[in-house]
Amino acid sequence: MFRNQYDTDVTTWSPAGRLFQVEYAMEAVKQGSAAIGLRSKTHVVLACVNKANSELSSHQKKIFKVDDHIGVAIAGLTADGRVLSRYMRTECINYSFNYESPLPVGRLVVQLADKAQVCTQRSWKRPYGVGLLVGGTDESGAHLYYNCPSGNYFEYQAFAIGSRSQAAKTYLERRFENFYELFKG
Amino acid sequence: MFRNQYDTDVTTWSPAGRLFQVEYAMEAVKQGSAAIGLRSKTHVVLACVNKANSELSSHQKKIFKVDDHIGVAIAGLTADGRVLSRYMRTECINYSFNYESPLPVGRLVVQLADKAQVCTQRSWKRPYGVGLLVGGTDESGAHLYYNCPSGNYFEYQAFAIGSRSQAAKTYLERRFENFYELFKG
Amino acid sequence: MFRNQYDTDVTTWSPAGRLFQVEYAMEAVKQGSAAIGLRSKTHVVLACVNKANSELSSHQKKIFKVDDHIGVAIAGLTADGRVLSRYMRTECINYSFNYESPLPVGRLVVQLADKAQVCTQRSWKRPYGVGLLVGGTDESGAHLYYNCPSGNYFEYQAFAIGSRSQAAKTYLERRFENFYELFKG
Amino acid sequence: MFRNQYDTDVTTWSPAGRLFQVEYAMEAVKQGSAAIGLRSKTHVVLACVNKANSELSSHQKKIFKVDDHIGVAIAGLTADGRVLSRYMRTECINYSFNYESPLPVGRLVVQLADKAQVCTQRSWKRPYGVGLLVGGTDESGAHLYYNCPSGNYFEYQAFAIGSRSQAAKTYLERRFENFYELFKG
Amino acid sequence: MFRNQYDTDVTTWSPAGRLFQVEYAMEAVKQGSAAIGLRSKTHVVLACVNKANSELSSHQKKIFKVDDHIGVAIAGLTADGRVLSRYMRTECINYSFNYESPLPVGRLVVQLADKAQVCTQRSWKRPYGVGLLVGGTDESGAHLYYNCPSGNYFEYQAFAIGSRSQAAKTYLERRFENFYELFKG
Amino acid sequence: MFRNQYDTDVTTWSPAGRLFQVEYAMEAVKQGSAAIGLRSKTHVVLACVNKANSELSSHQKKIFKVDDHIGVAIAGLTADGRVLSRYMRTECINYSFNYESPLPVGRLVVQLADKAQVCTQRSWKRPYGVGLLVGGTDESGAHLYYNCPSGNYFEYQAFAIGSRSQAAKTYLERRFENFYELFKG
Amino acid sequence: MFRNQYDTDVTTWSPAGRLFQVEYAMEAVKQGSAAIGLRSKTHVVLACVNKANSELSSHQKKIFKVDDHIGVAIAGLTADGRVLSRYMRTECINYSFNYESPLPVGRLVVQLADKAQVCTQRSWKRPYGVGLLVGGTDESGAHLYYNCPSGNYFEYQAFAIGSRSQAAKTYLERRFENFYELFKG
Repeated sequence: MFRNQYDTDVTTWSPAGRLFQVEYAMEAVKQGSAAIGLRSKTHVVLACVNKANSELSSHQKKIFKVDDHIGVAIAGLTADGRVLSRYMRTECINYSFNYESPLPVGRLVVQLADKAQVCTQRSWKRPYGVGLLVGGTDESGAHLYYNCPSGNYFEYQAFAIGSRSQAAKTYLERRFENFYELFKG
Repeated sequence: MFRNQYDTDVTTWSPAGRLFQVEYAMEAVKQGSAAIGLRSKTHVVLACVNKANSELSSHQKKIFKVDDHIGVAIAGLTADGRVLSRYMRTECINYSFNYESPLPVGRLVVQLADKAQVCTQRSWKRPYGVGLLVGGTDESGAHLYYNCPSGNYFEYQAFAIGSRSQAAKTYLERRFENFYELFKG
Repeated sequence: MFRNQYDTDVTTWSPAGRLFQVEYAMEAVKQGSAAIGLRSKTHVVLACVNKANSELSSHQKKIFKVDDHIGVAIAGLTADGRVLSRYMRTECINYSFNYESPLPVGRLVVQLADKAQVCTQRSWKRPYGVGLLVGGTDESGAHLYYNCPSGNYFEYQAFAIGSRSQAAKTYLERRFENFYELFKG
Repeated sequence: MFRNQYDTDVTTWSPAGRLFQVEYAMEAVKQGSAAIGLRSKTHVVLACVNKANSELSSHQKKIFKVDDHIGVAIAGLTADGRVLSRYMRTECINYSFNYESPLPVGRLVVQLADKAQVCTQRSWKRPYGVGLLVGGTDESGAHLYYNCPSGNYFEYQAFAIGSRSQAAKTYLERRFENFYELFKG
Repeated sequence: MFRNQYDTDVTTWSPAGRLFQVEYAMEAVKQGSAAIGLRSKTHVVLACVNKANSELSSHQKKIFKVDDHIGVAIAGLTADGRVLSRYMRTECINYSFNYESPLPVGRLVVQLADKAQVCTQRSWKRPYGVGLLVGGTDESGAHLYYNCPSGNYFEYQAFAIGSRSQAAKTYLERRFENFYELFKG
Repeated sequence: MFRNQYDTDVTTWSPAGRLFQVEYAMEAVKQGSAAIGLRSKTHVVLACVNKANSELSSHQKKIFKVDDHIGVAIAGLTADGRVLSRYMRTECINYSFNYESPLPVGRLVVQLADKAQVCTQRSWKRPYGVGLLVGGTDESGAHLYYNCPSGNYFEYQAFAIGSRSQAAKTYLERRFENFYELFKG
Repeated sequence: MFRNQYDTDVTTWSPAGRLFQVEYAMEAVKQGSAAIGLRSKTHVVLACVNKANSELSSHQKKIFKVDDHIGVAIAGLTADGRVLSRYMRTECINYSFNYESPLPVGRLVVQLADKAQVCTQRSWKRPYGVGLLVGGTDESGAHLYYNCPSGNYFEYQAFAIGSRSQAAKTYLERRFENFYELFKG
């Protein structure tokens, strides 16, 4: 009921210190079809559910190559995800042009998160409605990150996002103790 | 009822993670007169329903030539479609001027989708109210894409948009198994 | 009743995919005093109803010369029409200065329609409240176009706009079958 | 009652195709003290009612000289009228500086009307609340125009604006048939 | 009651053609402590009521010297008045620097009024909440003007503004017939 | 009750000619912890109540040195006060750099007041929520000013602001008749 | 109840002189997981609670290194905290590049507070939703500051922020009298 007072403007805080518009954008991620990612010490695997709209259509692209060493799987608003992927591609090209070495995954993830944060603090924009699983390898090994609409990011050994991702997460946590070993090693 | 709280501003998320203004713009596509597209490995056919307003009027142009190798059929707000067609024409001319080769269809479609995405994330704009069937041929063969107001695009073997397009889609799916064969081949 | 939720902002879509503010602007055209246009293969005739406000006033100018080969008759907000006529005049002058040939009628009509479309997609503007019958002759013969506030345009053999234009349209359709012959020829 | 939905924003159309804010601004002209203008073939006379606020005050200036050949009488918001008069003076000076001949009256009136039109199509402005009777002589003879807040202008042989101007208009129409003769001549 | 529909935005006209926000700003002048001005042919006297806030405070400055030949007394928002006085001072300095003669009083008053008018036609501003009695002498003799928040100005022989100024005005009108004589002479 | 119609926007006048948002900002000064200032002919004393938030914290700085000859004590929003102090410091440095003499206290106070006034006339800002007691000495002796959120300033011999300052003011007025003598002398 | 009138816009004062949006942002700090800081004369210790979202995730980074001599621990919106940390890092690098000495902690804290204050005075932004414990050492010894969303900062000997920080604060105050000795010494 009273939520409506505070939840239509991205720059309005609720009395409990929450930004509802950011939370609603995260809800959009939950509505998207699922995407999962796993990593060992040396490799990252990204996968997602693709349902073609009709027999005559190809499926919509939801995994994007960013650079030779980085890829991304998305859940939520595909258009927002595509725009962000393009941004990541540009950053990678600029970095390797300037420094003649591939952009470290963790660094790209921070830039992506900062770009998302800006959209949560301007009244004329809206938070991106997409979650991104960013996987890649660099000098420090293989990495899997989850970037969410709030401008936060988290590093994972294995993670799933999108609709019915809870089942996937439970499955991953049960079966992949061996991954956890690798993670600590 | 409660939808009204979240559906008048394009940059406002609903609690369920939806952007109602984008969905309403897609409704405008459904209200437009129908357009269909089909493709084989080498050719694309675009067609649309044209009802002249009166005996003394010509019909309104709803299929536009973009370049020698690309055409577009629209459903929805004709004015928005015309403006987007002009944008596509300019992109094609610039590309062939710079690279002396025709702009690949898939690349043009992405640029078009990005332009549509921007209009879903600025509070002083509105999403385009038009769906575009973009057909064209390039080095990778013949392509048929559908660009929708949300900034998404889909590749199809055959597709129909606009009012009563469901019947057309059903017809296409039933009769054109041969197309599907070509699609896989 | 519920329309009011969606019809006060030009950049707000209604749930049924309509832009009410654009439709209301078209209503302004219907309230203006009538204007009609007819064309043969070689000539265009524009006419409009002019009621002087008082015995001592001249009538308000509602037909404007744009260039030697183009004229325009308006219905609706005269001030908006005058501003658009001036825009058209400037475009014609620039074209003939650059290319040393008159601006083709169809090309001018598209530019005019694009200018109108912009006003339907910015939250701080309003759609023009005027309909324009643009008549002119160029290398491809005589043309009669109707430009409406939505950013659409239509080619006609004969057309009428403004208040009680329906009667005029019916009359035109009945009596001018010969025009239709010319149109096809 | 329901008018209120559409009449507080200058860029909002009513369902009947009216711009209420423009009409309200015209109401401000009706509230101002009266001004009248008459013209023969060679001369224009402008006059207005001036009531001093108190015995110790001079009256407020409501007739302004624009140039040697042009003057203006206003009804409505005096401050708006003064600002527009200054604009007209600047235009006259610039014209005569550039072309070494006086600015034709009709041309100035159009520029003034265009300036007024802009204020009816920007959400952060308001229509001018003043009506202007512009009288002047140039090579084509003597002219009397009425510029109203909507951006329209009308040429008159004799006209009255402001509060209780209806009586003045009736008087003018009855007594000045001779003026009408001149007007046609 | 219904006034509230039209009286919170400075750029919104009421149906009766009034700008309530401007009228409310004039109310602020009436709430300020009184200021009066009188003039003969050669001199102007400005005076105002100054109540110190406490025994330990000096009174707030409400009469400002603008230039050697011009002074101003204010009623209403002192901060607004001070800002406008500074503007006037700058204008006087610039004029005398450029033309080596003092700025005529009437000319300064018009510039001041134009500055006030702008604040009544921009949605992001508010009208100044101050009335200014501007007194000064120049080649054409002594002058007393009243500039009000609406952008209007009036010339007076004697005038009073601020709270309970009506009594002062009545007194001035009764006793100063001799002033009126001077005024006409 | 009805106040709410006029008191949420800083640029909206109430029907009684008041700016409620400015008055509310002055309320913030009353809520701050108290600050007092006293002056003789040659010295100014500033003092304020500082309550540390906890045993382990230092108290918050509420008296700032502006220049060698000027200091300021604040009550209300400390962050606003600190930003304004920094502004004052910059002004002092620039002045002494340009003129090789210290900035007179009265002049600094006017600049500060003008900065505050601007925030009461722009719709996208808010008035500063801080009161400043500015004390300093210059060629004309010692001065104590109070700058308030409305853009006004007052000179005092002794003054107190902030919560429960009324008791302090009463005390000051009773005991410091000797100050008053100095003030007049 | 009535609070809602004043608490959705960051630039709107409540009648009691409060900025509710700033207070709500401070509430976000209270919702974040706890962070604490302690300091002796020569060292600062920062610590925070890190709960990993799942067994397969690493924890989210909540302590950032700013420079060799400065670190920060955050509670609240992690994305806001990360953006501010980056700002601090840039300031430190610029300072040491220009002056070849490390940026004093107190100076950095003021710049950070000023950046936060700006977000409380622009209608199109929102206050940062993060509290920062800034710890560092410089020539004047070891320092611990708390920067809060309102633009205020406080120096502490020991402090805790975030959810259930009250217990931590009580613990710190009881056990660390020895710290207090150091603080005074």
